[in-house]
Amino acid sequence: MCLMVKCAICVHLIYSDIVQKCREELKAIRETNPDLKPTLAIIQVCLCLIQCYIPADFVSTQIGLNVMQICLPRQCTEDEVIDEILRLNEDSRVHGIFLHLPQSFLSRSVRNAIKPQKDVDGVSDLNVGRVVLGDQRDGFASPVAGAVLEMLARHGVYLFVYMAVLVGVEGPLKATIQCLLQNNGMMVQTCQWSSKHLQKQIMDSDVVILLETDHKSFPPTWIRPGVAVINLSSALMEGTFLQSKSIKHGTHYNSCFFTLLYMKLRSSTRWIQEQQYQPWRLRPLKLQPLSPVPSDIEISRAQTPKPISQLAQEIGLLPEELEAYGNTKAKVHLSLLNRFQHQPNGKYVLVAGITPTPLGEGKSTVTTGLVQALSAHLKLNSFACLRQPSQGPTFGVKGVFLCFNLHLTGDIHAITAANNLVAAAIDARILHEATQSDKALYRRLVPSVNGVRCFSPIQMARLQRLGINESDPSDLTPEEVRAFVRLDLDPEKVTWQRVVDTNDRFLRKITVGQANTEKGHARQTQFDIAVASEIMAILALTDGLADMRARLGRMVVGSNRNGQPITADDLGVTGALAVLMKDAIKPTLMQTLEGTPVFVHAGPFANIAHGNSSVLADKLALKLVGEEGFVVTEAGFGADIGMEKFFNIKCRTSGLKPDVVVLVATVRALKMHGGGPNVTAGVPLPKEYINENLQLVADGCSNLKKQIQIAHLFGVPVVVALNVFKTDTQAEIELVCRIAEASGASAAVQCHHWSRGGRGSVELAQAVKKVASQKNNFQFLYNLQDSIVEKIRTIAQKVYGADDIELSPEAQAKIDYYNQQGFGALPICMAKTHLSLSHMPEKKGVPTGFILPIRDIRASIGAGFIYPLVGTMSTMPGLPTRPCFYDIDLDPVTEEIKGLF
Amino acid sequence: MCLMVKCAICVHLIYSDIVQKCREELKAIRETNPDLKPTLAIIQVCLCLIQCYIPADFVSTQIGLNVMQICLPRQCTEDEVIDEILRLNEDSRVHGIFLHLPQSFLSRSVRNAIKPQKDVDGVSDLNVGRVVLGDQRDGFASPVAGAVLEMLARHGVYLFVYMAVLVGVEGPLKATIQCLLQNNGMMVQTCQWSSKHLQKQIMDSDVVILLETDHKSFPPTWIRPGVAVINLSSALMEGTFLQSKSIKHGTHYNSCFFTLLYMKLRSSTRWIQEQQYQPWRLRPLKLQPLSPVPSDIEISRAQTPKPISQLAQEIGLLPEELEAYGNTKAKVHLSLLNRFQHQPNGKYVLVAGITPTPLGEGKSTVTTGLVQALSAHLKLNSFACLRQPSQGPTFGVKGVFLCFNLHLTGDIHAITAANNLVAAAIDARILHEATQSDKALYRRLVPSVNGVRCFSPIQMARLQRLGINESDPSDLTPEEVRAFVRLDLDPEKVTWQRVVDTNDRFLRKITVGQANTEKGHARQTQFDIAVASEIMAILALTDGLADMRARLGRMVVGSNRNGQPITADDLGVTGALAVLMKDAIKPTLMQTLEGTPVFVHAGPFANIAHGNSSVLADKLALKLVGEEGFVVTEAGFGADIGMEKFFNIKCRTSGLKPDVVVLVATVRALKMHGGGPNVTAGVPLPKEYINENLQLVADGCSNLKKQIQIAHLFGVPVVVALNVFKTDTQAEIELVCRIAEASGASAAVQCHHWSRGGRGSVELAQAVKKVASQKNNFQFLYNLQDSIVEKIRTIAQKVYGADDIELSPEAQAKIDYYNQQGFGALPICMAKTHLSLSHMPEKKGVPTGFILPIRDIRASIGAGFIYPLVGTMSTMPGLPTRPCFYDIDLDPVTEEIKGLF
Repeated sequence: MCLMVKCAICVHLIYSDIVQKCREELKAIRETNPDLKPTLAIIQVCLCLIQCYIPADFVSTQIGLNVMQICLPRQCTEDEVIDEILRLNEDSRVHGIFLHLPQSFLSRSVRNAIKPQKDVDGVSDLNVGRVVLGDQRDGFASPVAGAVLEMLARHGVYLFVYMAVLVGVEGPLKATIQCLLQNNGMMVQTCQWSSKHLQKQIMDSDVVILLETDHKSFPPTWIRPGVAVINLSSALMEGTFLQSKSIKHGTHYNSCFFTLLYMKLRSSTRWIQEQQYQPWRLRPLKLQPLSPVPSDIEISRAQTPKPISQLAQEIGLLPEELEAYGNTKAKVHLSLLNRFQHQPNGKYVLVAGITPTPLGEGKSTVTTGLVQALSAHLKLNSFACLRQPSQGPTFGVKGVFLCFNLHLTGDIHAITAANNLVAAAIDARILHEATQSDKALYRRLVPSVNGVRCFSPIQMARLQRLGINESDPSDLTPEEVRAFVRLDLDPEKVTWQRVVDTNDRFLRKITVGQANTEKGHARQTQFDIAVASEIMAILALTDGLADMRARLGRMVVGSNRNGQPITADDLGVTGALAVLMKDAIKPTLMQTLEGTPVFVHAGPFANIAHGNSSVLADKLALKLVGEEGFVVTEAGFGADIGMEKFFNIKCRTSGLKPDVVVLVATVRALKMHGGGPNVTAGVPLPKEYINENLQLVADGCSNLKKQIQIAHLFGVPVVVALNVFKTDTQAEIELVCRIAEASGASAAVQCHHWSRGGRGSVELAQAVKKVASQKNNFQFLYNLQDSIVEKIRTIAQKVYGADDIELSPEAQAKIDYYNQQGFGALPICMAKTHLSLSHMPEKKGVPTGFILPIRDIRASIGAGFIYPLVGTMSTMPGLPTRPCFYDIDLDPVTEEIKGLF
Repeated sequence: MCLMVKCAICVHLIYSDIVQKCREELKAIRETNPDLKPTLAIIQVCLCLIQCYIPADFVSTQIGLNVMQICLPRQCTEDEVIDEILRLNEDSRVHGIFLHLPQSFLSRSVRNAIKPQKDVDGVSDLNVGRVVLGDQRDGFASPVAGAVLEMLARHGVYLFVYMAVLVGVEGPLKATIQCLLQNNGMMVQTCQWSSKHLQKQIMDSDVVILLETDHKSFPPTWIRPGVAVINLSSALMEGTFLQSKSIKHGTHYNSCFFTLLYMKLRSSTRWIQEQQYQPWRLRPLKLQPLSPVPSDIEISRAQTPKPISQLAQEIGLLPEELEAYGNTKAKVHLSLLNRFQHQPNGKYVLVAGITPTPLGEGKSTVTTGLVQALSAHLKLNSFACLRQPSQGPTFGVKGVFLCFNLHLTGDIHAITAANNLVAAAIDARILHEATQSDKALYRRLVPSVNGVRCFSPIQMARLQRLGINESDPSDLTPEEVRAFVRLDLDPEKVTWQRVVDTNDRFLRKITVGQANTEKGHARQTQFDIAVASEIMAILALTDGLADMRARLGRMVVGSNRNGQPITADDLGVTGALAVLMKDAIKPTLMQTLEGTPVFVHAGPFANIAHGNSSVLADKLALKLVGEEGFVVTEAGFGADIGMEKFFNIKCRTSGLKPDVVVLVATVRALKMHGGGPNVTAGVPLPKEYINENLQLVADGCSNLKKQIQIAHLFGVPVVVALNVFKTDTQAEIELVCRIAEASGASAAVQCHHWSRGGRGSVELAQAVKKVASQKNNFQFLYNLQDSIVEKIRTIAQKVYGADDIELSPEAQAKIDYYNQQGFGALPICMAKTHLSLSHMPEKKGVPTGFILPIRDIRASIGAGFIYPLVGTMSTMPGLPTRPCFYDIDLDPVTEEIKGLF
């Protein structure tokens, strides 16, 4: 760059100054961001001169190693250049792309092939448009243009009084320089070399900027004294960016160096900005139409969901962290946890309920009402984390969301596939072991491939567990071979069941293996509903891929004839299970009717499992909402079951601490606890539930009070949310709130979310916000080191109000067995009815004076808990006489679904 | 608009002229595009003056009805405006958005909220950038700017000699006018009203353009004689676009009218362009890295797939026709068939094979090699349409694709869910009918909801089938109630089976319903592998949602105790099945390793079903490739089975006519047919297959010849593709090609796709291209009106070479039954071994002199075929002793899958 008239050496100083400044900024950035690895890709044509000027060692020492140089042959086509660009666009390691190419290559298609966010040289239409319209916040402008401006400014050229002329072909650089100068008040003309006005325009100007010269020139006499001439000609192609008699040829590469340095600085800055936590720019969807709407104009105002990519952007997710499944749902990558590792968590709110009627008391709707109120009305970031409903029982739809479909993103299907692969592997293995010699089994399990036999990694792991330290298959003794090939599973002791995501009652007890091909190895077994699979519980509790893989491998599928547990690892199936589950581990992002974010992820049973949505969804959401934000999640069943497991199992696993419990109550359920008649699904409600009855309500509040006390056992404050139905009277509502607060609730408010959306939950949101800001003393109810019996007794007495527990002989035997196997220190997951605090569903209110019978005890070793069975638990629901499918249909033209909402 | 100096009336004429021209163009467009319904949405603030000037009747008569006017209150916020824009962006009925708002509302965020393709006023950064860089092909420029230019030109203002000044605030309009004028050679200065240079600049200019005036003005004396002054001030806000003493106030709305008309013209043109077939701009991925690559620079050149949205764009899909599932797969909407209804189909190529060895002969790889050669090397549009592999047998991976995952887009899971819902409904219904009175069943099936009882639509349909014409539930006689509530399914005659997508041999014969809750209704049944479900066959044969729904309803699940068939419609489950299958019906778009498009859709069994991928995928692909393009699809098993069914069942259903059959042969399989020893999976190949043996090859060509003759029965020419293995000798290869051509093949070529990708199949592609251009006389082998026996005999004799057929008594009884039920006119889907042309797998070459035994006959009424069983067919594979899951694993850090490829 040369300001001919002023002192050339001075220009050099200015230039050095800019370089120095860039370098220092970059250094400072690197020091504070040691993880910084932004990479600049340079696409260039081989054998062009400049190549010599960016030697690898120079790049590595001066700019850092992260420059990727792509050399294309001189004869390459436009398409080849574009192919490279498209590849770099998708390469998440590359943060900026610089086209170091002759003008003839820089076609419109090539320039615009670069993703605007990687276009650090500002050559795409969008980035030029941003510069033209004065916006450099989101876009990139050419660094050369920036340098021109900076040099003129530093050189004392007062832009707003001068006239400049730009000479040369049109293009992003010319447009950008023109704009930047004009935006600084300069009058700018542009001119082609061929223009008849060239002389006049140059002579009229105070600053002459030459974009390229090729071999064109003009007489020095055209330059008035005092005029600055800046020659950008071939600046990038031939290293002559800085061209002046007084500066030696040897400094040529500095110009490229400067450009690269500047781009590097920018891509670093952009990378850092991107990686950092961004405040939300959430645009809630309005539930009511705007008014007034002129009646003679057609406006359709149906609630349409936002594209999920837009919601993701609003809440600060990067595009590469999102995997869309259609336009309304997307999986979110777990890499977010790494990006936000230093970001503090938001507030953590659990929605639990009192002991419910069989109709349910509306925890899910309270949850969504609460986040809608927090996000859309109080303008506080908030996220709902919910369980994925099973397709089987209900055709799984919760009306509070937009665009649920029956398959969602396929997580339950993945669980079904993984679960049933284990089941098929078990029976096939039993058959193969029963019908083959040790030698034949060994030959097939460790086959010779191209003459070579070797153990697979998972087989090596089994050898190690067996204490066999050989790695060459030919070195095993016959005894070792026998130990290796025979899992010796006892068909009577297989605990693993097949699953299906359909309410199929005829699969509750079945006999399999009756075909002749199975050679008499029939055995009795059962199918469970898919969400009852241990793999679902693992999905809900895992904290990442490695942990999930390890848990899947630890799953115990039965025991061998010596009583030793046999695992998925022993079956050799762990890796395949991890592959089947690799997408399911990513939480699914959706939105509420008001356009606020929701994670739907995992939905384990609340009796034989812990009934809570996933740890991973909660963790992602807690980072996303930011320190002042709220994550609201939900526990299955009543608080005595779902909340107890949330604290003792889920929070213990995740290490997360809850801030508030929202306890959902309904006047209907309280009346039932107060002695009202039975409530049965499908039968009209008795009149006690329709007319005011303060006595029933007051008596039933015993259950509410007990559930509040249970939360307080864990040191967490409670906000009671009374889910108001239209039959509730004002006196009933006030009575409940009064008793709740007298019972120790930090607040008790009524909710009208069902009729009014988020607006109906604003009072609840305010109460939750206030209570969450208070300090609490969260603690677990028992220590893992307590004995299994002690842990069960603690829950039975402190939570359920039992006098004691009573173990069946089977239960006692299992406890001994688990202790012997080293499973004694796992948390307890009680499988108890949710319709009473006791084990007797008909005992409402607060039952006392009972002994809790423990019929049997089982274990989910992969998920990591022991589950005592209190009474019988159905793990396979049935279809009623008139399933809801009678009402479900699809309009073949509009594709609208009927009968689901 | 006012050119003060020239005659004002003249301006008016010019203006009218432009309007007239627009109107005529629009009219012409409408006449040739009667489907044209592009809609322009105008967002405006209520109570602004202009509202009076676009009265609804004027809009409807002059511009057409499709203007949607959104009025926001005057106090609305920026966010509210953006909300409206975002809503309109997603509204597929809206093709253009025009912000008719005061300057203060037109913030950067508002302007850029509009999707660039709907920004007909050219206010977004991207569209301004395009104008600045001289590209108006893809973008929109402000129509006002265009009008200024056109008026100056028509008015005889020679742009390239004049100097113009733009006075007013910065913004898209100013930038656009400036650019358009500069691009036409004019020298343009811009100036603010507050500039000190205002007077000088105006006095220096030949054209003065005032962007807004508010209440600013300048003395008339500043205007030199002959200078044109164009006043765009408040043009849009107050209807004074055209402002001149000589033109009356009453014409003000014309300016808006003009703007709207112009935008309408543009959105119409854009809509038409979009809807039309676009030539492909396919960018194949190179299999080899570019060279030379400097060794000291880190470049990772792993084959990375294109984003699926990019591939979709390359082949002319609209964004709204795509539903992404992650970045590498997407479902394609069936609406494409409607958009391209007048587009001629491309060429239709079937890949079939000779009778294979148990190892398979590579039809899938020939298919992908062929499309890669056609697309990437011959530059002919081509599409592969393939079957979705089942997860069960193979962990379903074909190495020729990028990014297959085990669940793909969940189609097989959807089929499993739908299939098993039917199964659960059957058993539950049998139980409920067995344990409830007619009255109880009726009360539950037609319950009282809020005091009202009514039949659901699917129940009404059942009543009609029963000949009961009542619609009020209380009007049925007890006999009618009984007929309605009792399907009376005979548990022994239930033909519907449950399915699972796992190789689970222990489910081949099972007893269900053994739990006490099922009250002794245990029965024997079985699970099939998921792809054996009739629903898979329906998915493969359907032509749309309405047809699929009808087929699902027609599925026969068993018969009642009177021998009448009971359908899914009778179970009331049809609508729910359609909902479960609504996404599965859309084909899944993926790409080959060379970046060419593939549809993966449906994969029915090739014995008990027809073994071909979906009709819908083929239809979509035939439209997409265009008249000169190629769709290559694949038939399962050997040509005697897969190809015969492709012609007689799939083509008959779809109405599509095939142009060429590519018959895949291998030297290995030919040697087997020539008398070579047995070939068994997992066992090393005998030496005959490794060393040259021309005699075996020559003898084995009998099978190849027979398969060519079978294709000729249907009148379709054959290209033989010899899939070359590295052990094949040149003499063997030449022998096969010679015999093939002598046997009537139109060409016989060798393929090296496996080692060389598409480049290895160029010769095949050229042969296919040549043969496809010839006329052929496609015909079916039998008429549907022939008797069932006649149809079976025709296939047995003409295709398999049998002397005759022999029906078992069961088969004969079934034929009588199907005839009686009116199912006699369905096509025949033979369930025969694929390892021989006969029913005896060990008979290789061309067996003769045999009688084909028909053991039993079954029917898939929903799918629409009858399938005779020749021998026993396993519909549930088993796991081997060492399933491939031993090698499959997931790297928990990189998420890379090991062992699948």
